[in-house]
Amino acid sequence: MATQGTQEIAEEAARVAVGILGGTGDEGRGLARRLAMAGNRVIIGSRDAGRAAGAAATCGSPPQVTGAVNEEAARAADVVIVAVPWEGHADLLTRLASALEGKIVIDCVNPMAFDSHGAYPIPVPEGSAAQQAAAVLSGSTVVGAFHHVSAPLLLDPDVSELDMDVLVLGDDRHATDLVQALAERIPGVRGVYAGRLRNCGQVEALTCNLVSVNRRYKAHAGLRVTDI
Amino acid sequence: MATQGTQEIAEEAARVAVGILGGTGDEGRGLARRLAMAGNRVIIGSRDAGRAAGAAATCGSPPQVTGAVNEEAARAADVVIVAVPWEGHADLLTRLASALEGKIVIDCVNPMAFDSHGAYPIPVPEGSAAQQAAAVLSGSTVVGAFHHVSAPLLLDPDVSELDMDVLVLGDDRHATDLVQALAERIPGVRGVYAGRLRNCGQVEALTCNLVSVNRRYKAHAGLRVTDI
Repeated sequence: MATQGTQEIAEEAARVAVGILGGTGDEGRGLARRLAMAGNRVIIGSRDAGRAAGAAATCGSPPQVTGAVNEEAARAADVVIVAVPWEGHADLLTRLASALEGKIVIDCVNPMAFDSHGAYPIPVPEGSAAQQAAAVLSGSTVVGAFHHVSAPLLLDPDVSELDMDVLVLGDDRHATDLVQALAERIPGVRGVYAGRLRNCGQVEALTCNLVSVNRRYKAHAGLRVTDI
Repeated sequence: MATQGTQEIAEEAARVAVGILGGTGDEGRGLARRLAMAGNRVIIGSRDAGRAAGAAATCGSPPQVTGAVNEEAARAADVVIVAVPWEGHADLLTRLASALEGKIVIDCVNPMAFDSHGAYPIPVPEGSAAQQAAAVLSGSTVVGAFHHVSAPLLLDPDVSELDMDVLVLGDDRHATDLVQALAERIPGVRGVYAGRLRNCGQVEALTCNLVSVNRRYKAHAGLRVTDI
């Protein structure tokens, strides 16, 4: 597919309805809040429709932000963000495969665990959560993004701009362009193409390093890519 | 070990003699050049003493920068940077284990390969090159650092400052503090603690993503950590 112009893709990103699977968690609610503030229609998904509606009320309100069970959120959206815990990731996506068919699916899941020494990555047979999603969702276009965005910053009403780049990975140029443009609807954020899906594992795992940075420096660390 | 003051550790970093194994490659020569410019004594190591001396002449000159075979470079230095190709990494370190005993060893090796789609990480049984080094060098203190520093920028005489953070990983606080201070001897660079050695694999592999960034944006990309 030919690359669209920057203005054209930004307009497309402004029009998409965004579903967020596992949208009642902090990361999901934070992204819902920021994308709704930017003007996008957002459907928060959850296993429980009542909890989804409750989360929608905390980060915007109907009709712009609504809640639904995950499958309905997937069907109602143009672009779907997967923000569920790593446990159950494959199961949920397998179950929603037909609802997600033909859509762009943004995986922001970080397979990681904690022990007394802090965070460490969980090995994924497929190479990464995003590659697992792509393996399960053969009818969708999977993009990896939003792995390092701090939920507390997304949810903080005193934070008007986020000082970070969002690394976007995928094998389809239109999809990565669109997700970069979607990320850039959050003030301060720049969407940066950072490679094919096969290079998503280390981007997911790098979240463990940011956890270490946050502990050492008492921060909500993000990344910027220099020289671009 | 108690954490030293910032000034004290900076002074210690100024005094160390730095050996660079595989120092005739672009990355090794680039680091040799910048550390010598900062005032450190540098010993470039190579399999071939003549090639090491030749490299020394291109990035400083005796007595501040000298060349030697790898084993001599290891013995003569206080801190040793491993900048060899991934192939042969384990063999070289196994052979030099006694020469490296009691020293801080900085591993900056990125296990990666290329095909028609670009760069991709090579899985390492120990988890990362740095963890492999630690497994082989039981008498040394291994630190991971300098993975993302662009050799062309290090070697470019028109580049006076590098716009990037160096992520430093390790399990010994004095060693990571010293390597952060050593990195900061290069103008523009900030040394950032980024976790224990077990979280080094994704930092090494992330070099593949920077290769993708460089291709897409025609850049020499680096990273900055925000909010610290």
